[in-house]
Amino acid sequence: MAERLDKHILKNGMVVLGEPMEAVKSVAFGFMLPAGAAQLPDGCCGAGTVIADWIFRGAGNKNNKELSDALDGLGLHRASSVGSSHITIGAVLEAGNLAEAIELYADIILRASLKEDQFELARQLAIDRVRALDDDPRQKVMLKLRKQFYPSPLGRSALGEIAELKTLAAENTKQIIKNKFNLSQTIFAVAGKYDFDSICRQMEDLFVISIKHRETKDEGRGMRDDGRTRSKYLHIGNEGAQVHIGLMTETVKPADEDYYNARVAVSVLSGGMSARLFTEVREKRGLCYAVGAQYHGLKEAAGIACYAGTTPDKAQETLDVIVGEFNRLGDGIGEEEVERAKVGLKSALVLQSESSSSRAAGIGGDYYMLGRVRSLDEIKNKIEATSVESVLGFLRNNRFKDFTVATIGPKEVKVK
Amino acid sequence: MAERLDKHILKNGMVVLGEPMEAVKSVAFGFMLPAGAAQLPDGCCGAGTVIADWIFRGAGNKNNKELSDALDGLGLHRASSVGSSHITIGAVLEAGNLAEAIELYADIILRASLKEDQFELARQLAIDRVRALDDDPRQKVMLKLRKQFYPSPLGRSALGEIAELKTLAAENTKQIIKNKFNLSQTIFAVAGKYDFDSICRQMEDLFVISIKHRETKDEGRGMRDDGRTRSKYLHIGNEGAQVHIGLMTETVKPADEDYYNARVAVSVLSGGMSARLFTEVREKRGLCYAVGAQYHGLKEAAGIACYAGTTPDKAQETLDVIVGEFNRLGDGIGEEEVERAKVGLKSALVLQSESSSSRAAGIGGDYYMLGRVRSLDEIKNKIEATSVESVLGFLRNNRFKDFTVATIGPKEVKVK
Repeated sequence: MAERLDKHILKNGMVVLGEPMEAVKSVAFGFMLPAGAAQLPDGCCGAGTVIADWIFRGAGNKNNKELSDALDGLGLHRASSVGSSHITIGAVLEAGNLAEAIELYADIILRASLKEDQFELARQLAIDRVRALDDDPRQKVMLKLRKQFYPSPLGRSALGEIAELKTLAAENTKQIIKNKFNLSQTIFAVAGKYDFDSICRQMEDLFVISIKHRETKDEGRGMRDDGRTRSKYLHIGNEGAQVHIGLMTETVKPADEDYYNARVAVSVLSGGMSARLFTEVREKRGLCYAVGAQYHGLKEAAGIACYAGTTPDKAQETLDVIVGEFNRLGDGIGEEEVERAKVGLKSALVLQSESSSSRAAGIGGDYYMLGRVRSLDEIKNKIEATSVESVLGFLRNNRFKDFTVATIGPKEVKVK
Repeated sequence: MAERLDKHILKNGMVVLGEPMEAVKSVAFGFMLPAGAAQLPDGCCGAGTVIADWIFRGAGNKNNKELSDALDGLGLHRASSVGSSHITIGAVLEAGNLAEAIELYADIILRASLKEDQFELARQLAIDRVRALDDDPRQKVMLKLRKQFYPSPLGRSALGEIAELKTLAAENTKQIIKNKFNLSQTIFAVAGKYDFDSICRQMEDLFVISIKHRETKDEGRGMRDDGRTRSKYLHIGNEGAQVHIGLMTETVKPADEDYYNARVAVSVLSGGMSARLFTEVREKRGLCYAVGAQYHGLKEAAGIACYAGTTPDKAQETLDVIVGEFNRLGDGIGEEEVERAKVGLKSALVLQSESSSSRAAGIGGDYYMLGRVRSLDEIKNKIEATSVESVLGFLRNNRFKDFTVATIGPKEVKVK
């Protein structure tokens, strides 16, 4: 895994990162625009989703249909996402069409048409999408959980809230794009088959030389806890078949030196079918078929998030067993458990190394979170270096204190 | 894309297929066992899901926990699925651990412990999973649609029906495994980094030499339409936020010479964001954010399946527009539409060629459906060879006659 990192900073401050991959014919790219849900002005929650739709409805000299035709004509598979920190717009496609794709994306970022009638359609679809969450309680409970867990505005749902989407106006949203599409804070990441020099020349041309000075008035935005005491338990009642349980507890951030110990700890809990949660909740007790925990890291805060979906009569026991497993973790871990966790994490790394999309997202995310890109070898070595002692030491110094719990279903649970 | 195909038939008739991939460190494999939902005895619907769980709960000299530990210890990412024709059990992992993984899977296939108490847990989880569909109307409507659309037993839900799962007994299920895990009808497919000679020696050893003659009494099973007239419309009422619409219409099977024309036609309808369904339903009319159609092929029958999720007040218009677009397709297609469809299909092919999991599934599926494996070049050339004329010719000879429709939600629609 001796991959190379290409890096260049444009004159406007925009960072261009690349990881070449041998023997692939595809290339994946993403523009990370600093306009994620937590970056938006208060009262505009959900604007990110509307923006990620609206900017594709015509750009440069192309109307909505012409732009879609041009993108599909390159055979590109779009991937847009709205996270806490960024709106990421990107795609994976055949390497030969990369330059044309970047040109279209420059139009989308710099010269989106932003027509009023298209805004209304994008806004209405965003509202429908939030409403549709009622039919997807699994996704909904995790969105509610993150909102409950993180200090505001970090936990905001990227999909937004209906009340705020209803009052969102085109003019207002246009201003957000102007303020937040800050090129000096934008990261461009590419992985797969490409020519870095020609990408850099093209990017400099499209994003520096050919545009006038773009004044962005971003007031910046950090975590600013609103001070309200967040309740540890949120329940949303419905007439559904299952109780959907989300549980989250604080842990170290991606830049922390204990990050890898945290990842191994989570894997011991939930890294595979031999891991503790699956074994205790599903295999031994048959409490539910879906249970799992994952590390969830933002730059400013991080947690371990767990989901389980179960029948109303088993919900309390399911939650109790899960909390028990979290608490029991610090009491002792077997050598083989840590070994399996490490093998699992390293094997996931090998699979990621073979996917251009995974690598583009990986190097972009690293640069934002850590200010630098880790090589896969570095990650592998850091995983290797963990041990039963290091993981237990980490757990001693970072006890799971509070659990934030959210449930959706016909029955509440008791959170101790 | 000048890939090589490795092929060997074991003495017991089991087919071993391989596609080596340069420059990857992973390998993906799958055993396709002829015990899919449509292959099971009547009244045992759902047994496949129970079996795919049960056989992993201990095998050879390992109990449930020891087997899970061993699998996770190899860092393998399991992938099991139950389809209409097969139960496929497989994984993707680092290439160096392949031989050990195959040895464990041989135990799972040939020497699963099949303990009664573990059966009960697997059966109960399968029942819970069917119940959980009520909280996932999007998946549920497509399962109901396929059941409604295909002649019995092809459309059976692999998840099963609660009434049948409730009466399923361990002894009975054990007999199904004995009858249906027919090695002479089993296909093993591998893609990525591997040594084909050593795989073949190992497979011969594990599945032929080291086992006694396994007598399977499979009565065989084909499509046998039960003769009942399937209603064209099925509605399941609920109090949900959306109406989930599934629509399906007959088309040519994967082995048909018009298969590629059908695929291009579906892409013109729904191959990207410039395609007709997305443009007409979502972009122009804002009727719903999720709409799409896909080719769905079994060996014995095939259809084009469409999903849309929308609000109750827009459900009728959504269905009408979708049916309108299907019917309008034969009236004329633009040169550029076919061109974009072809580019999209070819680009998807490039991405598949870079994933060991996709390729293992691809070559196994081809062999079952067609009796041979298509090279990616062949597929590419066949896509290239389509044209406006060939697609319109296909549509003239294969008019969309009947639409089977299923809906879940608070409001019914009218099907003309």
